[in-house]
Order: sequence, then structure tokens, then C-alpha cells
Amino acid sequence: MNLVVHGRARHYRTVTFDAGRNAVRLIEQRRLPHRFQIVAMPDYRATARAIAQMIVRGAGAIGATAAYGLAQGARAFRGSDPARFSARLQLVYQTLQAARPTAIDPVNAMNAVLRAMRAGSTVAEQQALALAAAEEFASEDVRHCAAIGRHGEELIRAGANILTHCNAGWLAFVDIGSATAPLYAAQKAGRKFHVFCNETRPRCQGATLTAWELAGQGISHQIISDNAAGHLMQRGEIDLVLVGADRVLGRTGEVANKIGTYTKAVLARRHHIPFYVAIPLSTLDWNLRSGRAIPIEERPEGEVLGAWGAARGRSSPVYVRIANPSSGARNPGFDVTPPELITGIITPEGIFRPGALWKNRRRLGRCGPP
Amino acid sequence: MNLVVHGRARHYRTVTFDAGRNAVRLIEQRRLPHRFQIVAMPDYRATARAIAQMIVRGAGAIGATAAYGLAQGARAFRGSDPARFSARLQLVYQTLQAARPTAIDPVNAMNAVLRAMRAGSTVAEQQALALAAAEEFASEDVRHCAAIGRHGEELIRAGANILTHCNAGWLAFVDIGSATAPLYAAQKAGRKFHVFCNETRPRCQGATLTAWELAGQGISHQIISDNAAGHLMQRGEIDLVLVGADRVLGRTGEVANKIGTYTKAVLARRHHIPFYVAIPLSTLDWNLRSGRAIPIEERPEGEVLGAWGAARGRSSPVYVRIANPSSGARNPGFDVTPPELITGIITPEGIFRPGALWKNRRRLGRCGPP
Repeated sequence: MNLVVHGRARHYRTVTFDAGRNAVRLIEQRRLPHRFQIVAMPDYRATARAIAQMIVRGAGAIGATAAYGLAQGARAFRGSDPARFSARLQLVYQTLQAARPTAIDPVNAMNAVLRAMRAGSTVAEQQALALAAAEEFASEDVRHCAAIGRHGEELIRAGANILTHCNAGWLAFVDIGSATAPLYAAQKAGRKFHVFCNETRPRCQGATLTAWELAGQGISHQIISDNAAGHLMQRGEIDLVLVGADRVLGRTGEVANKIGTYTKAVLARRHHIPFYVAIPLSTLDWNLRSGRAIPIEERPEGEVLGAWGAARGRSSPVYVRIANPSSGARNPGFDVTPPELITGIITPEGIFRPGALWKNRRRLGRCGPP
Repeated sequence: MNLVVHGRARHYRTVTFDAGRNAVRLIEQRRLPHRFQIVAMPDYRATARAIAQMIVRGAGAIGATAAYGLAQGARAFRGSDPARFSARLQLVYQTLQAARPTAIDPVNAMNAVLRAMRAGSTVAEQQALALAAAEEFASEDVRHCAAIGRHGEELIRAGANILTHCNAGWLAFVDIGSATAPLYAAQKAGRKFHVFCNETRPRCQGATLTAWELAGQGISHQIISDNAAGHLMQRGEIDLVLVGADRVLGRTGEVANKIGTYTKAVLARRHHIPFYVAIPLSTLDWNLRSGRAIPIEERPEGEVLGAWGAARGRSSPVYVRIANPSSGARNPGFDVTPPELITGIITPEGIFRPGALWKNRRRLGRCGPP
């Protein structure tokens, strides 16, 4: 998106690749909204750590990061032995996949890279094809988000109040975002609306990233605690819920997304408020047969026991321990929302009922196994 | 409760009165769990500010604080003119009531003090009666919480996992607590169980106060983000929800409590998990005819935009700004849960369905108008 940094407006993507240095370049999202910084990952292990430590996060963004990371690992291979090259590729693939087990985009993105590499006969050819395929994945992610915007725009009526959860904005993708795409499209069409951003504890991506994005684009918004959404729905102050996803099961329509998504879907159903999930095709998983089979990442308890923020008199963000010092925490990072709570899935191919994904699998199922 | 402070075990009440200094003494709850400190409020205005600024919070605790505050204001009056004394009393009453408009305990507590004062014919007599009545309110709060424990204990089965919201523990009352009373009683009876404490953003009374209380009493517990409760229910990890209340309508069974309570009740209903509300009789409001009429306090946006906690290298708690600096927040402090989501109201007189409060109003309705 266009962004003013140090007084200069320019266009940024969340993830890019520096072919000369064989480095993955990322917006350091843990420093936002307090500082805007681009960091370079010099090898695939650093790239995997960037995903695990959430320097980069969000379905499409970690998909593109994994695709670039696979190309990066492939390109770092010295030699021409196909068997050793293949073994290295497998190691890189597994390292990147393990960095965020709940998400499917990295898997689909890396599978696309592997498929493209088959056309090469030498290691050198395959290395070149890997990078081209990663670039193509990133560009397709941008095209998909733009298409989500075109299809989802009609849902954003003038004067509407929209609830978002976590960040499924341009920072979570290569550009534009999934859940934010309809907002940006409606804004371009001249409509005014208001967004309530769930702060999304424990990491507060709603309060930090989504609010920062919307402020940057001049969209009216307010942050609320995750506890407040039910009350606002009860009072008729929310017209639409719009979220992203880390994995959507093509067979069942179940949606894995940031912890708390399920709660908002249950509340929306009680109040007859439409609940939409916006995803590029790379977020679809056509293999798993049940949401129960989606691995739910248990994250470090320190995220729940404290928070990061800007403190007076300190130049860098500070971690404060909020909780009682002798108490521990449980910290599941994601949850699964069943299809009956979801009004529609906004895809680059149009809006589908969650139960209709499977019968449209030819149209939607471009991202298959390698 | 019994508490070890600076290596010495002794018994504390949340709120007490120093008759010699005419001061209300409070545990400074904003410093917990990082520091244990007793502070003295020298006049009724300071006492009202202590409620508004949440030095003291929780239904019974602010009830007792308001009762003591009214006695404090009455006792500070110099003179014998009944008309001027009555005008002063009215001012004190209104100041204390306005400090936390959503709660009913301060109103019921102050009405009890005013009723008792009628037996006095001189200003001096009424001043003495005011303090005696405030002491009686505080002691009744303790007896009520003990009775809640006796009635609610049977709900806490061995091995159960119990979800709490905010703090309705002894810190929220004069002693023992309402929602915690059944826990402490079950513990005394030798049963083992586990408590999940919703952290309860924005002020995190679950992560700070409830976790501190349970740790102090040696009860197994973990803090979770408010977003995680739905996921744990989905996975069958929660057997019972137990919360307190700021106001329960005797006519309808509606429950006003800390923001997010309604959300947990909606989730509990979906998962067929019993949802109980524990209250002393002073939390019952027999006048209001609809939950819509309960004033919902809108609190400062800074609570949502940041958090208080302990930072490395700082001796006092630090406020950090979590949210994007150019974004604002909405911060409703309470919500209203309808009776159909509530399994039972645990009172000192037994457990009642919310719809059965009204027909038991003779038994339950000791706290009426002045």
C-alpha cells in the first residue's frame, strides 16, 4: 500500500526478495505501530525464525515468505547433485512449514514452487524456476486480494459499522489484504463507514496493525477490547463481521483463524449479523477432512501474561508483566469456526457459502499437492 | 482472607474504617499484584474518587466503601442543624453514587445506612448510627459471602475446570468473595479443581486480582486471554462458568457485570455449560424494570489503548501504549446478560433460577429503598 514513511510517500509490499543478496526482506511487524522498519533475512533458517517469531505474520504474507524462503534455500545450494539438492529442499520445506503449523498458505505456496521446479532439468535451472515461482505466488496473492475487494465491496454499505478481528490487512498479505480489501474498495467507491477493531489479545494485532493500517488509509475506526464486541452487537452497533483465515477446509467449510474468531462468530449468529471470511485461494486446504485435525499452535505463556507497548521515556517498545507473578497461562493461538456460523467465504472467484466450496473445487482448487 | 505480607500471615478485609481518624482504609487494588498497600481516604470526596479511580472495585467492596463514605461524610459535619445536616448527607450520597453508576451495591448500602439513621433524633445520634450501620453492612457482606460458599460448594465437583471472569473474589467484597466463595468452600472440603481466569481486558482484573487471590490460597489456576474461552469450551475443557455481578434485576433476572460477561454466557449456552452468577443480597435491584435501563459506564479510552504492568528496571508499575498512536477506542465497562443464559443465581439464601427472584422477593428483598 502507499505509505508515508519519514515524510516520503511510496508503495510498499510486506514481503519482497533481494535476488542479489539472496535475502527475504520483511516489514518488521513486531515494531509496528511504533516504528516502521524493513529487515533482511540472510538465509532460510532466519526466514523460518521470522515466521515463528512473528516478524512476519498473516496468511498470505507467510505464504509468500515461505515461497521465497524455499527459493532462498534452493539458491543457496552449491553443487549440481540432484539427490543432495532434493534432500536440501526437503529440509528447507520442513523447517519453513514447522514455523507456523496452523497455517496452510506456506504449504500451498511451497508446493506451487516445487511444482514449477519440475520443469527444470539441472539444479541451476530449478533454482531459477524456484525464484520465478515464488515471485509469481507473491504477485498472485496481490491479484487475489484485489479480486476479493471487487467481490466483497458490495457488502460494505454506506454508514455501516464493521467488526474486524486480528489483522487480515495488507500487512498479513503481500499487499491490499483479504478482510481489508472490501473496505479499501468501498472507500475508493466513495462510501463512508466505521470499523471496530478487536484489539485481539494476546498479541493485539487489531490494536497495533489493523488500527495502524486503517489510520494510514484514513478510514474511520475505533479499537475495542475483545470483551466489548458482544455488548456492541446487543446494542445494534455492529452490522457486519469481516475476518481473514489461516486455513479453510475445502471439504467442510471450517475456518481456522486467530484465537477469538470463533467467539465472534457465535455472537454474530445470536444477533443475526452477517459473518464473512475473506481468503485468497492459497488459504484453502483440500485434504483435511475435519477441523479437529487442524493443529492448533500453543504459543508461549508470556504473551498472555504481559504486553508490549511504548512507555514514556523509552525509545523502544517495552514488555510489561501484567499478570500475577506467580501465575501461569494457557495460550492457544488459533481456533476453528464451524461452517454453520459463517455467512460466506469471500474468495477471488466470488462469494461462496462454506458448504459450497467443495462442489466448486475445480474453480477454487488451484492450490493442490506438489 | 489470610495473607502473607512481608513474611507475616494475618487476616485482612478489603475495606475497613478508622473511627479515630474518620478515614476509610482500603487495599490499593491498582498496585496489586505487584505491591500490597493499604491507603487511607481522609474524607468522603477522596472515598468517592477511590471508587471512580478503582483503588477499590467490586460489588460488595464498593458497597461497603460507600456505606463507610456516607458515615464518614455524616461524621465530618460540624453543627446540630438537622436541615443543613440532611442537605450535606444528600450531597455525600450523590457524590458516592455517581462514582460507579452501573453498580447497585453502593445505593443499597447507603440506603441501609440512611434507614438506620432514622432512629436517631439528634445529629450526633445519627452520626453514631451511621457508622454502626456501615459496620453492619460490611459484616453482613462477609456473612453473605460465607453463605454463598455453603450453597455454591456443591457445584464444584472434584476434577472440574471452572471459568471465572474479572474478579468477584474477596478483593471485590469485604472478605471471601461471591464467585470465589464456592471455590474456597470446595477447597476446604478437600476437593481439587482447576480455574481458568479470563484476563478480563481492559483492566485485567482476572490476570492481576483473581490470579493473585487464587495463588495466595493455593488453588490451581491458569490465566487465559478473553479470546480463548470459546476454544476451550469447544474442546470440552470447561465444566462450569462462575461470575459475580454489579447489579441483578430482581424483576427480570438480568445481570449487569464486567464487560465480556455476556459473551461468556452466550458461549456457555452454545456448549451446554452451566453458567452461575454469585451475589450477596445487596446486588439485587428491585426497582428497574429492564436491563436496558441500567446505565453502562463508558470508561476512559486509555484503558483499551494500553496496559499497566511491571517492567524490568522499574520499581512501580508502568503504563505502556499498546495501540497505534493515532487511533482511539470505545470502552464500555459493563454489559447485561439476559436471564435465559443464566443457569442459576447463587445467593446467601440459596440458588435461584433468574426468573424466580421476583417471586422470592420477600426472602431476598431485604435491600429496599431508604
